[in-house]
Amino acid sequence: MADIPARTELKVTTGPIRGSRKVHVGNLGVAMRAVDLEPSSGEPPVVLYDTSGPYTDPEARIDIMAGLPELRSKWIRDRGDVEEVAQREVRPEDNGQLGPDRSGGVQPFPNVRKKVLRARAGHNVTQMHYAKRGIVTPEMEYVAIRENLGRERALDAARDGEDFGAALPDFVTPEFVRDEIARGRAIIPNNINHPESEPMAIGRNFLVKINANIGNSAVASDVASEVDKMVWAIRWGADTVMDLSTGRNIHDTREWIVRNSPVPIGTVPIYQALEKVGGIAEDLTWDIFRDTLVEQAEQGVDYFTIHAGVRLPYVPLTAKRVTGIVSRGGSIMAKWCLAHHKESFLYERFDEICEIMKAYDIAFSLGDGLRPGSIADANDEAQFAELYTLGELTKKAWEHDCQVMIEGPGHVPMHKIKENMDKQLESCGEAPFYTLGPLTTDVAPGYDHITSAIGAAMIGWFGTAMLCYVTPKEHLGLPDRDDVKVGVVTYKLAAHAADLAKGHPAARLHDDALSRARFEFRWRDQFNLSLDPDTAEQYHDQTLPAEGAKTAHFCSMCGPKFCSMKITQEVREFARLQEEKAVEGADAGMEEMSKRFHDEGGELYVPAADR
Amino acid sequence: MADIPARTELKVTTGPIRGSRKVHVGNLGVAMRAVDLEPSSGEPPVVLYDTSGPYTDPEARIDIMAGLPELRSKWIRDRGDVEEVAQREVRPEDNGQLGPDRSGGVQPFPNVRKKVLRARAGHNVTQMHYAKRGIVTPEMEYVAIRENLGRERALDAARDGEDFGAALPDFVTPEFVRDEIARGRAIIPNNINHPESEPMAIGRNFLVKINANIGNSAVASDVASEVDKMVWAIRWGADTVMDLSTGRNIHDTREWIVRNSPVPIGTVPIYQALEKVGGIAEDLTWDIFRDTLVEQAEQGVDYFTIHAGVRLPYVPLTAKRVTGIVSRGGSIMAKWCLAHHKESFLYERFDEICEIMKAYDIAFSLGDGLRPGSIADANDEAQFAELYTLGELTKKAWEHDCQVMIEGPGHVPMHKIKENMDKQLESCGEAPFYTLGPLTTDVAPGYDHITSAIGAAMIGWFGTAMLCYVTPKEHLGLPDRDDVKVGVVTYKLAAHAADLAKGHPAARLHDDALSRARFEFRWRDQFNLSLDPDTAEQYHDQTLPAEGAKTAHFCSMCGPKFCSMKITQEVREFARLQEEKAVEGADAGMEEMSKRFHDEGGELYVPAADR
Repeated sequence: MADIPARTELKVTTGPIRGSRKVHVGNLGVAMRAVDLEPSSGEPPVVLYDTSGPYTDPEARIDIMAGLPELRSKWIRDRGDVEEVAQREVRPEDNGQLGPDRSGGVQPFPNVRKKVLRARAGHNVTQMHYAKRGIVTPEMEYVAIRENLGRERALDAARDGEDFGAALPDFVTPEFVRDEIARGRAIIPNNINHPESEPMAIGRNFLVKINANIGNSAVASDVASEVDKMVWAIRWGADTVMDLSTGRNIHDTREWIVRNSPVPIGTVPIYQALEKVGGIAEDLTWDIFRDTLVEQAEQGVDYFTIHAGVRLPYVPLTAKRVTGIVSRGGSIMAKWCLAHHKESFLYERFDEICEIMKAYDIAFSLGDGLRPGSIADANDEAQFAELYTLGELTKKAWEHDCQVMIEGPGHVPMHKIKENMDKQLESCGEAPFYTLGPLTTDVAPGYDHITSAIGAAMIGWFGTAMLCYVTPKEHLGLPDRDDVKVGVVTYKLAAHAADLAKGHPAARLHDDALSRARFEFRWRDQFNLSLDPDTAEQYHDQTLPAEGAKTAHFCSMCGPKFCSMKITQEVREFARLQEEKAVEGADAGMEEMSKRFHDEGGELYVPAADR
Repeated sequence: MADIPARTELKVTTGPIRGSRKVHVGNLGVAMRAVDLEPSSGEPPVVLYDTSGPYTDPEARIDIMAGLPELRSKWIRDRGDVEEVAQREVRPEDNGQLGPDRSGGVQPFPNVRKKVLRARAGHNVTQMHYAKRGIVTPEMEYVAIRENLGRERALDAARDGEDFGAALPDFVTPEFVRDEIARGRAIIPNNINHPESEPMAIGRNFLVKINANIGNSAVASDVASEVDKMVWAIRWGADTVMDLSTGRNIHDTREWIVRNSPVPIGTVPIYQALEKVGGIAEDLTWDIFRDTLVEQAEQGVDYFTIHAGVRLPYVPLTAKRVTGIVSRGGSIMAKWCLAHHKESFLYERFDEICEIMKAYDIAFSLGDGLRPGSIADANDEAQFAELYTLGELTKKAWEHDCQVMIEGPGHVPMHKIKENMDKQLESCGEAPFYTLGPLTTDVAPGYDHITSAIGAAMIGWFGTAMLCYVTPKEHLGLPDRDDVKVGVVTYKLAAHAADLAKGHPAARLHDDALSRARFEFRWRDQFNLSLDPDTAEQYHDQTLPAEGAKTAHFCSMCGPKFCSMKITQEVREFARLQEEKAVEGADAGMEEMSKRFHDEGGELYVPAADR
């Protein structure tokens, strides 16, 4: 392996998240992270959903050159419906290198499988297929344990939320997961050639998920930084990762990413197909696209964005838009339709696409190629015409027992967001909605992670199952490592705000634990319970660096002389005493307290000793 | 002046915002900023609301030692209802220095007025008083011009939005402003002793405003950095600034800020009163509080936060909360009530407070001392009990013709936000609502500008008139200069998203201009139209530093080979041609286009020349 990059070139971040401990639950060893609180709290550890995979497990040995262990391999083979076939030969054009010249190429992944899996003739290996037949798979069991997340502790808590018709269970059973998959209301994206993935569900009745996009473009980035970005994104909470690479080395870059990813990987196959025809959309053919699907299916991609709803008659509907067609896949297909004056081959060959999807269990992410690219174009005729077609295709995919989610906008002002959710639920039979933001205004380039987090939290509340993150670099450039983290944490908080508003039975456990820590000045617990403990502590230390301050009963907002939290402890003492004195009447209690305050000289100062 | 700080110690940022030009409109010279677009756009300049005052005016001479010019001085005196009185003597305790020792004190502002203004006996100088008498003041005229902001250009555009019963006019007339002020639905906070302020309105039927908090605490900060923070905050869009200083030098710090501020300044007088009694809440008296109101009134503070709704019977309602009482003012008053077992002197002396407010035209910001400090405590009995009392006090203040706004939460999950707005509108007679966020989850310390921007945008849409910003340091420490900017820009975009959703007639002009610039690859126009041009350009340059790239028809997201925007120009050409050919039937047009694409070899590549 002398000619492969030194490991330092493929360095990724490992080790536990600050203040968290990896735990494995149940006989399937479902990975979660536990945050231990200060003993003074007398509270149990807070258990949080964990997307980071083995990278945060001190016990795990990480070897990027070898890839992750194959968690699901036995589950898949034990079903007895797959066969091993030789992997399709990798061709120069797969890496965007049409000539024999491989210069500028990246090292192929050293541990590529020579044999790959495929459904045996006449078999269908999708989770939906099993679900419809009443089979509860290990993947479904894994998801049930993963989603429950301390829910039992919340059972006594009153449900508080508005779920707009969702059906959040008090407790998630494997049977509930199976039923949601069978109905098409949820998906578990996990290609049989990606056994490294830890099963997760995307659906309105599960925790709201988030996706992070990575991928080199012809202008910047390389394989090492893309693998690092993937590991970095899942560390902070990305539930799935999309590899949107374009230009050269697409195939090899993807192999590095998939083999090292514990979360589902999504792609937009048309991007690679376009590279294979030198970037000329009208030269695309069904055969080239089909070959690309098989190529990526064998590598283990878990879901494909396919813009089969961009139909020839819809293209002119975008002519009067302020920002026309902003989806890359959408514009590729629009151009193809115009150039040939033919209906989209993706639309016409949809059944054949389904045949491929079900042979590997790849989920559809039906792309919104005509999504609005500006506030002005939101909810227009072109957008909804495509949505209705996606609904039609969803039913067709379900006839094949293929798993489906639907992509959504984009740029939508607040008052038009709910209409998107309502129309999607109605026209797509409650198939999971997967939106990009939406951005609620166009005037803040540089802050679009925030303009979009507003829309994302709202549409997540209304019922969207997964939110595709937006980074601060949106519209401006390619996100770097820091942008990826900011985007992921921003979307994690938006998704959590949505879970809270929906009335998810366990969501508030996290908020309440952090609020109690704040109220009791357990600074360490506050940091550790934050979605980003490192940043929380760093911000605190900028104004109060002293280690002592971490336990001090004040923060620099109020200063040491006065603190609003302290008074409340006195209010409680007062209320308690008032209750005791109830028999003699509250007034007596009042006077008693009044007297006590003066006897104690009830200071608002915090004694120097406490500082 | 040898003993005063060198000017470099009080350096503030001056000069135009990148890509913007200061313009003065009408005979009152209302300040706005114009963004000139590239000639290729063929579009007029985009005129934006400008809170930055003379600091961004190249014509203006800035002298922090002298303070700003007195824009409103003549308007105030010409009304003939004020008299000059000697300013109250500044005492050591005003600066939190009870002994003769002034060490650690800051330099007094060199240009303090010896004489200050006050309403002549029997007169009332509030804008509401004039409005109720049918008088249109120059302040109202100024506001009308300022709020219209290119609205005439939007008159033909169809109104698009959901305003929940607000009454946004197609065009703002001085008479409309007068009527809103008279009804109490809007306020113009401008103390007659702050003639430097540029009139602005806070009301549901005007643009949504934002406030930035500054102020030293006993732990950090000093006068120079606070003045600089004020100038920095208004540069990026803060409509008002609250000085929340505690500890020493409160009086002198405030003088520096007020004399140099073109925006209304708000304070929480109880903070200073508490300092005057050495931090012992129960030692507070009406006389000390009253004296503090007069002291600050004479300095020119434009609105006072007064927690008169924290009544003795409500205090025990907070006993079972997760985070008790988190408002500093609220807990000071709660402690006072408990210690004396008496009703709040702020509540009982409310009429006397009104007498002071109307002698200087200081607006009430009725404080929400019992606001929730966590998701768990949102919308509880204590919070709403106080709100109803604030409604009762609003009517009382209106009987004195005092201007009033109402402060709101805080921490509220999305599904409970609208109830806050509905109850406030109902119980407070549509007096302007002024909320802090609200934060929609507690789990993201370090990102609370975002958790709160989500709630702020929503409640702004529902009808809140002003949004108090939250910085990334919230709950962790004192914001620095960078935090102030991030907080202001974040809230500016949230306020704008709210204006868009309400269907403000002019709001979309800004979004559409930026979207057209994006669509046409006018990078410079995109940067200049951003709420933060510096950050937008800097992010762009990180991946595409070449000056040439600024005019190139691609960005690093797609790379030079393919660009989704370009295709749309072809779609338009296609649609145009299709219409021409309509007589011969669309098909002919289709084939024609199909042929043309091939003749032109319709490339998706951008010729190297364009790069």
